[in-house]
Amino acid sequence: MNAAHRPTNAFYAQSGGVTAVINASACGLIETARRHPDRIGKVFAGRNGIIGALTEDLIDTSHESDADIARLRHTPGGAFGSCRYKLKGLDQHRVQYERLIEVFRAHDIGYFFYNGGNDSMDTAWKVSQLSETMGYPLACIGIPKTVDNDLPHTDSCPGFGSVAKYVATSMREAGLDVASMAATSTKIFVMEVMGRHAGWITAACGLASEAADEPPHLLLFPEIPFAEAAFLARVEDCVKRFGYCAIAVSEGLHDADGRFLSDMGTRDAFGHAQLGGVGQVVAQLIRDRLGYKYHWALPDYLQRSARHLASKTDVEQAYALGRAAVELALAGRHGVMPGIVRTADAPYAWEIGVAELKDVANVERKMPREFISADGFHITDRCRAYLAPLIAGEDVPPSRNGLPDYVRLKNIAVPRCLEVFTV
Amino acid sequence: MNAAHRPTNAFYAQSGGVTAVINASACGLIETARRHPDRIGKVFAGRNGIIGALTEDLIDTSHESDADIARLRHTPGGAFGSCRYKLKGLDQHRVQYERLIEVFRAHDIGYFFYNGGNDSMDTAWKVSQLSETMGYPLACIGIPKTVDNDLPHTDSCPGFGSVAKYVATSMREAGLDVASMAATSTKIFVMEVMGRHAGWITAACGLASEAADEPPHLLLFPEIPFAEAAFLARVEDCVKRFGYCAIAVSEGLHDADGRFLSDMGTRDAFGHAQLGGVGQVVAQLIRDRLGYKYHWALPDYLQRSARHLASKTDVEQAYALGRAAVELALAGRHGVMPGIVRTADAPYAWEIGVAELKDVANVERKMPREFISADGFHITDRCRAYLAPLIAGEDVPPSRNGLPDYVRLKNIAVPRCLEVFTV
Repeated sequence: MNAAHRPTNAFYAQSGGVTAVINASACGLIETARRHPDRIGKVFAGRNGIIGALTEDLIDTSHESDADIARLRHTPGGAFGSCRYKLKGLDQHRVQYERLIEVFRAHDIGYFFYNGGNDSMDTAWKVSQLSETMGYPLACIGIPKTVDNDLPHTDSCPGFGSVAKYVATSMREAGLDVASMAATSTKIFVMEVMGRHAGWITAACGLASEAADEPPHLLLFPEIPFAEAAFLARVEDCVKRFGYCAIAVSEGLHDADGRFLSDMGTRDAFGHAQLGGVGQVVAQLIRDRLGYKYHWALPDYLQRSARHLASKTDVEQAYALGRAAVELALAGRHGVMPGIVRTADAPYAWEIGVAELKDVANVERKMPREFISADGFHITDRCRAYLAPLIAGEDVPPSRNGLPDYVRLKNIAVPRCLEVFTV
Repeated sequence: MNAAHRPTNAFYAQSGGVTAVINASACGLIETARRHPDRIGKVFAGRNGIIGALTEDLIDTSHESDADIARLRHTPGGAFGSCRYKLKGLDQHRVQYERLIEVFRAHDIGYFFYNGGNDSMDTAWKVSQLSETMGYPLACIGIPKTVDNDLPHTDSCPGFGSVAKYVATSMREAGLDVASMAATSTKIFVMEVMGRHAGWITAACGLASEAADEPPHLLLFPEIPFAEAAFLARVEDCVKRFGYCAIAVSEGLHDADGRFLSDMGTRDAFGHAQLGGVGQVVAQLIRDRLGYKYHWALPDYLQRSARHLASKTDVEQAYALGRAAVELALAGRHGVMPGIVRTADAPYAWEIGVAELKDVANVERKMPREFISADGFHITDRCRAYLAPLIAGEDVPPSRNGLPDYVRLKNIAVPRCLEVFTV
């Protein structure tokens, strides 16, 4: 490939829901690229992800100081903007792929780095195919990212470990609160967490509990159809034994017929639809059937942006995968994604592996059934062994005026030279 | 007072909603009491607050090691249990007050320390009056605690500074997330925070924004009646200028007629309406009128239990007030509450002051109107000057297995010697 023999520019984009550590991958990528000026010219970032490439809205990261790029490592969110935009199949929308190649050609881009989840790995794979059929040399590398932890061919996904640490910490803390209040007030605490299809984040809440009487007492997974009677019996038993019950519920909880509980909003005394997510639905069900007072929490974006509480493991892996992407490209690899290979549980050890994008694209990794206890309401020791290292260690960002000091990049655009393209 | 001349035992209870630092006050109190064995015998804690005194369910803290008492300083929630239970007036329910004195007499208790908010200071005052009329010597000292920051005669209330730091940090982090997503997805982020009657916590969210384009862009205070049209115009303007809009809303937001935007219809034991869900009401209003996609978050108990992110100032003040309570009692004071006196804004300086319980009881401190901007949607520089020192500094708890390592006390009961008393 030409890309391997003369300095050409690199394109980098962030895709899908952002995380507390996706910028750590960007940091690893840009810092590594800057160490190879003989091979890589400038790193251009897509403003708002792949849309920035389609619309020729490229950010010239060479205007950012080394110090500011270093600060990306501890800054959550997507520093260049992300997008929810999936390119269609090559057959359906070939014009979009051709536009990408046109933009890359116009800006002398020889490296394509795409930082995202399943959909993004699919896009990266399609771009790599097209570059071959169109005879345009392009090293296409995917970089994994998803709080959902559902990418195959990597032991864990950057972003997940920090969400896991956040939800487990939050559950432990809120659990202590409700335990204090239970004698005369709140007896039920429900926290709704992300993960529509896979219960990895719900499982992580379980790490807060190291004994049967410690919160959370019950977990409601998307993998286990909601069984109302069995659940309510467990809640009642919990309150009788411990005085209260703390529950984590996946946003994707559904019943045996596949209906999401979040779509089953209850009605108030006036017949008005009661607003709220599955957390509130579950909490109100308990109040209506068992009469217990409840509180419920919906951390929403807080859980995936909580860089102040990031897992050190997660930050290190996110950074390492950004660096590995560049190193793979420089080694002449394309159509691949670096991933995490676990070599030992305790003490935890990992190294970088390499997967083919075609094997990763659109494949969703489910949580193994043996990670969920037989009764369906908690995690097993095997699950704990898997999860524990992912939340290990702290990586506290610097603070200023009592708040985390996050970087805002200048994000200066590369001058456009092509015709307008509308997405 | 006899209490000043021979070692008698002390009673300590936690009351009302707990916080990330109420145990730091307990730590300051118990550690100080242990340094004065000539004056103070054992510290007995009420299990579940004042209910523990009424039911003679006392926890003998002398069974806890010095090391475990020290760990209280970094443990959130109420280590001995709290309660929402307000003693009625002396005239209405004299039997309860007499029972308290009976229990104190039976267990040789000469000091009464009550750690709570407005209602609790009222109770402590009534107990101090009764001890005088009944001729039972008792040093009654209140210790302030409330995330609502609405106690008078103290510059700030322990618990508030840590909530303030949590909500400002969370808003900054979630704001970076939604800014990344706004081009193709979520444009509106709403975070609902505590503060029924006073907007202190809502105001604290504003600290995350150091420029007009930084989140949060709009704050909805309980002090400012909700004006729908003006609000929606500001939201639309925000999205047009910055691409997105981040909003913090108080659970106590109401309209010009005093109607809460969301009222779950239940009441707690103090008769206060239990609120929740206004965040979603506001978010759905924006979607219905302006068509923007939203996310909303309800941190609920997470905000007041987030010891992992506590303010160093807050922890120090909570500890100092627990210590001061003992020192005041040993100095022969009773019917008083130690408080925080601010002596300078920048650099921040404070000292312990003393207020009469009768001046504190049932008085609610409102947020000054000059802390809210003229348009009603943000905070002023005067507000920032007040709030900034309260969130300053970190006090990170020790961690174990990637999670905060909080103490669980043994909480061994003192043997009962009186007849059963039902509350």
